[in-house]
Parts: sequence; C-alpha cells; structure tokens
Amino acid sequence: MNVTVWNEYRHEKLHQEVRDIYPEGIHGALASMLQTQEFIVRTATLDEPEHGLSENRLSSTDVLLWWGHIAHDEVEDAIVERVKKRVLEGMGLIVLHSGHFSKIFKALMGTSCDLKWREAGEKERLWVIDPSHPIADGLPEYIELEQEEMYGEHFDIPAPDELVFLSWFEGGEVFRSGAAYKRGNGKIFYFRPGHETYPTYYNEQIQRVIQNAVRWAAPTTREYPVYGNAQPLEKLSANKA
Amino acid sequence: MNVTVWNEYRHEKLHQEVRDIYPEGIHGALASMLQTQEFIVRTATLDEPEHGLSENRLSSTDVLLWWGHIAHDEVEDAIVERVKKRVLEGMGLIVLHSGHFSKIFKALMGTSCDLKWREAGEKERLWVIDPSHPIADGLPEYIELEQEEMYGEHFDIPAPDELVFLSWFEGGEVFRSGAAYKRGNGKIFYFRPGHETYPTYYNEQIQRVIQNAVRWAAPTTREYPVYGNAQPLEKLSANKA
Amino acid sequence: MNVTVWNEYRHEKLHQEVRDIYPEGIHGALASMLQTQEFIVRTATLDEPEHGLSENRLSSTDVLLWWGHIAHDEVEDAIVERVKKRVLEGMGLIVLHSGHFSKIFKALMGTSCDLKWREAGEKERLWVIDPSHPIADGLPEYIELEQEEMYGEHFDIPAPDELVFLSWFEGGEVFRSGAAYKRGNGKIFYFRPGHETYPTYYNEQIQRVIQNAVRWAAPTTREYPVYGNAQPLEKLSANKA
Amino acid sequence: MNVTVWNEYRHEKLHQEVRDIYPEGIHGALASMLQTQEFIVRTATLDEPEHGLSENRLSSTDVLLWWGHIAHDEVEDAIVERVKKRVLEGMGLIVLHSGHFSKIFKALMGTSCDLKWREAGEKERLWVIDPSHPIADGLPEYIELEQEEMYGEHFDIPAPDELVFLSWFEGGEVFRSGAAYKRGNGKIFYFRPGHETYPTYYNEQIQRVIQNAVRWAAPTTREYPVYGNAQPLEKLSANKA
Repeated sequence: MNVTVWNEYRHEKLHQEVRDIYPEGIHGALASMLQTQEFIVRTATLDEPEHGLSENRLSSTDVLLWWGHIAHDEVEDAIVERVKKRVLEGMGLIVLHSGHFSKIFKALMGTSCDLKWREAGEKERLWVIDPSHPIADGLPEYIELEQEEMYGEHFDIPAPDELVFLSWFEGGEVFRSGAAYKRGNGKIFYFRPGHETYPTYYNEQIQRVIQNAVRWAAPTTREYPVYGNAQPLEKLSANKA
Repeated sequence: MNVTVWNEYRHEKLHQEVRDIYPEGIHGALASMLQTQEFIVRTATLDEPEHGLSENRLSSTDVLLWWGHIAHDEVEDAIVERVKKRVLEGMGLIVLHSGHFSKIFKALMGTSCDLKWREAGEKERLWVIDPSHPIADGLPEYIELEQEEMYGEHFDIPAPDELVFLSWFEGGEVFRSGAAYKRGNGKIFYFRPGHETYPTYYNEQIQRVIQNAVRWAAPTTREYPVYGNAQPLEKLSANKA
Repeated sequence: MNVTVWNEYRHEKLHQEVRDIYPEGIHGALASMLQTQEFIVRTATLDEPEHGLSENRLSSTDVLLWWGHIAHDEVEDAIVERVKKRVLEGMGLIVLHSGHFSKIFKALMGTSCDLKWREAGEKERLWVIDPSHPIADGLPEYIELEQEEMYGEHFDIPAPDELVFLSWFEGGEVFRSGAAYKRGNGKIFYFRPGHETYPTYYNEQIQRVIQNAVRWAAPTTREYPVYGNAQPLEKLSANKA
Repeated sequence: MNVTVWNEYRHEKLHQEVRDIYPEGIHGALASMLQTQEFIVRTATLDEPEHGLSENRLSSTDVLLWWGHIAHDEVEDAIVERVKKRVLEGMGLIVLHSGHFSKIFKALMGTSCDLKWREAGEKERLWVIDPSHPIADGLPEYIELEQEEMYGEHFDIPAPDELVFLSWFEGGEVFRSGAAYKRGNGKIFYFRPGHETYPTYYNEQIQRVIQNAVRWAAPTTREYPVYGNAQPLEKLSANKA
C-alpha cells in the first residue's frame, strides 16, 4: 500500500519552536511512524515542483495525508483539481488539523469548513463515539492531549457519513474531531489534532488513529463507473421513441 | 415566503417542441403552480443581467429553484459563488433534473455529479422510500411518468442526508431521484424528473413534491454562527499559555 | 395538532425536592408551556389505567412526549407495543432525559441505550451543530444550564439520522444530546436535559427546543404503505413461472 | 476469523425442489464457499440444541450469517437476546434474504422490517451505488440474477448507515438490497438475494458480496465501553453538590 504524506512545510522553516518539535518536518514525523512493512511511505511538500504531487505520484498513491496551514492559497488550483479527481477515482485522503481550510478539503466538502479556534495550550479529550469503527480499533474510551489548540463548533462541514470522535475542550467547547466521508470512489477522514507547536503526532494513540485511518481509506478494487449515454438493458415498449 | 425560480431558458427559445410544452418557459410553468397565498414567486433567467440573481434578489429569496441544461458553462463563477454563499447562510435550493450538472450543484456536492442517461421516452416510476419525510406528504406509494429521460446509477453524489425517492426505469436502471442535503445553514433538495420535451411539471404529483420541497427548504431563523478566534467560556487552568 | 405529554409521575410524589420544582408534575410543566393556540395538549401518567395510553388516546395523538426514570419496568409490554406501532404509523415521539432507558426508546433503537451518568449539579452547555435544522430555530449558538445531571459517551444508540446538539460537561465528558430519527412513518427526537431535581423545563431555550421538536415530529399525511404479496406492475417476460 | 453460518434448515427437509438445489442445505453451500484459509467456518441450525448457538459458540464467533424464513417464530426469545447482546458487543451479523423478518433483525432494527414480495421468478438487477464501499470490492456495475423472488419498497427499515446496493425488478419495483448498519460495537449487513428455490448462492458475484461483507463485519479490538455512574475527569467548581 502506497502512502504519500503531504505537508506545507513552512512553519518548520520559519519557527524554531516548531523545528524543535519536528526537526524532520511534520511530514517526516508522520512518514516515520507510518513506515512499516504494511505501508510504503513517501513525502511531498508545497515548495517542490507541482507541490510534489505529479500525475505519476498521485496515480501511484493509495492514500494521501494532508497537513497545511499558512499557505493554503499557494496551492495551485490545477493541483487541487488533480487531487480531487484522484479522490473521486478512489484514492484515500486523510486531512489533518488546519487542513480543514485547505482548498482540497473545501472543494470536496462544498461548505466553508470554518470553525472557532483558540491557541491557549488547553486540554483536549477526544471521545470515541463509534466503537464499531475500524478507525477506533485498539483505542481506549478517550484520548487525552494535555495541550492543544482549540477548535470549536459550529464546524461548517456536511454531516459526516460516520462520526468517530468528539472533542471536549477545557475552555467549554466541543468539536466533531473525527469525521469520515465517502466521495465518489474515495474515502476521506478528517482528524482534528496536530497543532504545529505541540508534539501531538508523537502521541501513540494519535498515531494509532492515523494508521487505522490509512488502512480504512484504502481504495477498493473496481473499474471506474461508466457515465454518459447508455443503451437500455431491457427491451423498451414498442410505442416509445 | 419568497421563492425565486431560475431557469436557463434556452431550450424554449431554440426548440419549437419545447416551446409547445412550456410556452411561458419552464420557469413560467413552475412559478405558475407555486404562486399561491403561501409563496411569493419571482423568476430569473440566464440572459438577464447577473442572470437575474443580484445580491438584492438573492438576499430576499428564501428558496431558489434551479433548472439548467445546455448552458451550465455560461453561468458566471461569481454568481455561482454568490448563490453558494446564500445557501450556506440559509437559503433553500431545489435543483431540478439536468441541474445535476450545474456549477452550483457540483460546487455544493464536491463530487462530479455524473450519471448515466438516455432519451428514449421510457417509463419512470418514483417510489417513496421515506414515508415519514415532509417532502412525501400527500403522495401515493409511487409516481408514474409515462415518458421521461432515463438517469441511471452510478450517480456520483455524496450519500444523501435523506433519500426520499428511488426511480425504476423501463430500460433496467435505478436512480436516487429525490435526495435531501443540509449544507451550512441551508437545505438542498435534488429532484430528478423534468426533461424539457415532456410535460412533467404539469403532473400534479410532481408539483406536490416541488411544493413540499419548497416548504421543507425554508430557512430557519437564527443568527449566522460566529467563526474565528474565540475567548474561552471557562477558566483555563493556571499553567497554560 | 394533538400532543400528549406522558410522565411516569413518581419522583414528584415521592420527593419533596422534586415536588417543589414541579408542583403539577413534570408533565404539568411541559403541558403548560406547550399549551398554545398551536397545540391541543393532554397528559397521561403511569398510574392511570393503561398508563393513560388507550388505543383511543394514541390514535388521536400526533406527537407524544415521554419522561420516565425509576419505573421503566412497570410500563406494560403491551402498551409499549401499542406506542411503537403508532410511531411506525406516523405519530411523533419526543423522548426526554432519563427516557433513554425506557422500554419504548430501547425497542425503537434496537440498542442498549446505555450511557455514563453523574449527579453532581455541574454545568452543561448544549452546542447547536446543525444550524439548518428546524429544531434549532430561534436558538443561540449554545444553551447553558448551570446545573444538570451529567450524561456521557459512549451513548449506545444508532448513529442519529440527524444530530442537532452536542453537550459539553464541566466534568470532562461530551454527549450527543439532541438526536433525530425516522422509523417507519414516524419521527423520533431524543433530547437529553431535564433531571427532576433542576428547573430545566422552565428554561425558555429548552422550552423552545421542545416546541420546535413537536412541530418537526408532526406526522405526514399519507396512506400507510401496503406490504405483503404484490402483483407485478409491468408485464413479466413469457418464460417466467 | 471465526464464522458461523446459521440456517433454519427446514425448506431443504420439506421440499425436494430446494434439496435439489442445496443438497447440503443453504448453510452447507454458504459454508463451503466461505471455507478458505481466511475463514474458519462452522454451521448451526434451528433444530440443534439452543439452535446451535450456545454461549460458547457465540462467544467464539466473529461473524454470524443468518438465513431463516418459515420458522422465525420457533427461534427462542432467549437465544435472540443472546445473539443481540453479542452483536452489541462486536460480533458481525449478515442477514440474508427472508431473514429480514427474523426476530433478531427486527429486534436490532426497531421497525417492522416489512416489505412487498412476489414469487414469479423474475429478473433482478442489483446496482452498486456506493463504489467506495469495501463490500463492493471486485464487483462490476451491477449483478444480474435471471430468476429471483421480488422484494419491493417500501422496506420498513431505518435509513441504512450505508446503502451499497439498489435492486431493479422486472415487475416494476425497486429495493434497498444491500444495507449496512452499526449497532453498539457490532456491524450488520442485510443482503437481499437468496430465495430457496433459485441457485443464487452459487452465483460467484453474490458469493463475492458475502465474502466481502464477512470481512467488513469483523469486530474491532477494543474494550467494551464502560457505562453507569462515572467520577468526574475534571475538578468541578466549588459550589456544586
């Protein structure tokens, strides 16, 4: 299974604080924990040609992870269209944290994807509300993160096809923090945690969620559906045009 | 309740066959059957300035109906954005038949909205599969249309929030022909029938569906949610940033 | 529109503390605030013959509210079946607070309906997560209750057809506190708040939710679907049995 | 992975016509095609002690298949409760064809599960409407069955969490023929085809669906959620009880 971890990779270059936490970049940390016998992992970043997302790369990617924040606007529309096409063809997409405002997530959701936020290093507790979901496999009742950015409702997304996690925040908000969607032939999972100034992606339970999500988002093996003009499969009655 | 019926209004000008069925245009027929004490109905068409959808018009519209087919590409992107913004703010949207391929529907769905089709004047039977839904109010078990264009699965839409009708076609296909969505503060209903060469919109049961859908899609009365940076509602623990 | 408010009506008889808050019983308080020109409201309680839910009463009820807690087991199975049949026929059902463990709610959900709970008079904040829903009409972003019993996830219910409210609790839990379902021809809304020792049902926003829910749960006007052996609607091919 | 195929096993004993098609019983045919390196398959039938579903058997079953028709009433309520408990604990359940009217399916759905039906050996075509779903893996756009019993809408089930197949019938009906649910920790898949007088379970595409469904329904590995009275995870404010 071929996994591509895409990262904007700007905070790490700009801010020592972030570089201290993720010296190989957020993509490096994610790739490192996914890199097992099960997954073949490559990375791609904004400043590479075609943002590292050439036709070749995408066509050989089963699941794409996406982390972006301060440079959403720099992602070229043509690349966004290319990724979207691949998702509708079957490629899985895992959108992380501030990726909620990425062009690709907004294009696939059709809504503003806006939310409330606050950087105050407060406690987040993610409750599993769908214990039957493969993305919750191996997890306890909740995941506790001592310090995270707050994201609060209303989160302007379509009602998820499956809602796996709900977050509680110390400051009084709640959030739909694990939301699964199917679009075309592809599966999409939005997972909230992962602010760049906290070591969230080193948390083993968070890693478990992301690993589970990659497995869940794997494409099915099918021909792409046939669209357009279609001959009847049954004989039409005589008096029809 | 203020309703705007938008129609591309091209087939009626180009084809005598269509003009014979809808001498006042499809928008005229729809407006005429909606025009009751309950609804204040206006129309708008592609060739009017701003396609008839000025800021003023949209801000005073509670529910917008949309029929388009051969000129989807001529709808300006800025107007599409304007309509989308209004839907997310709460305006209801009823997308009819070939409107499945309109820019506005595709933008709100996030998928290709593609499907199979065939113009053979075959029989369609729309089965009510959600008898509790207000859009099914007053309807029998199914609606039968002697001649319609066929639309067949796979229909590339997100799984509807509520699925009200399923169509059976003589030629062997099925179709999710009544699909309800909520996006932001707005409600969207896609309703399949209404090919321009058949008198479908004069069918009283079809009219009943559209009237029900307009009622269902009425906006709720609420302030638009507040997004962005938010102060905590509870005291954060002392040791936080 | 005919509304019946059903209450177990035991706490009020047993505990002075509850009687002080609801001198006419919880059903009395609910009936009083629903009693407007819009609704004709009657009450029914456990200790009446047939629990006040005769065939006549149910067949003339459009929406039934249900509050129960310490005497779920005393509700006769035959009456539960009768109520369930009416819901599947179209009667709306609003299940309140500890009614999550009522026989009727468990029978309609098919799950254990179990949850976490704590009586500590802590703060609850109910966030609106579906701003387009008619049950959220007229409400602010959240409802704050200074003192309530805590209900926490995992709440063992089917994924709601529509999820309207999420609760935040001071003690660190979250809860799906406003859950809408459709079953057969009927609509069901579960609404969390309303512990008997707090004056929750006098809160005007809580009252607004319940009034909205009653309107939303109103039956549609349709014939009950026909089930069983069916003649073909189309001619079957000659070589079939 | 441990799979148990449960069959009523009455038609095969009573009717030569059925025995000719399924000489080892429907359970035998199903077990035979599932029996691979991937699955350890056992069978159980109505007339065995405890219907073959002892506590031991169920606790060691990951996924249970269920085929029943003329003897639903003979299944003991205590065994139904036992199966239901196991599903809520995580065991997958695949309900086949006339199993729609089994006690276990009705108990888990909460609705009547009624439908239209006709035995006329007509053509059924099952369209894949969710191409991203693992149960559709490896399948073409539709499965065609030359002769099957008809099941038609309205099918009185809760709106499926995921709808995978829609059936077209020659006689003019449609049906939601592949419906996925999650209840508690368990997954449930209802799959329509399989009337006892047709060789449906020898069809390789139908077999593929059932194999896929068994994989999809596998339990997740988690502790059962903790319910009941709960201590606060956060310090409550001083003035609370």
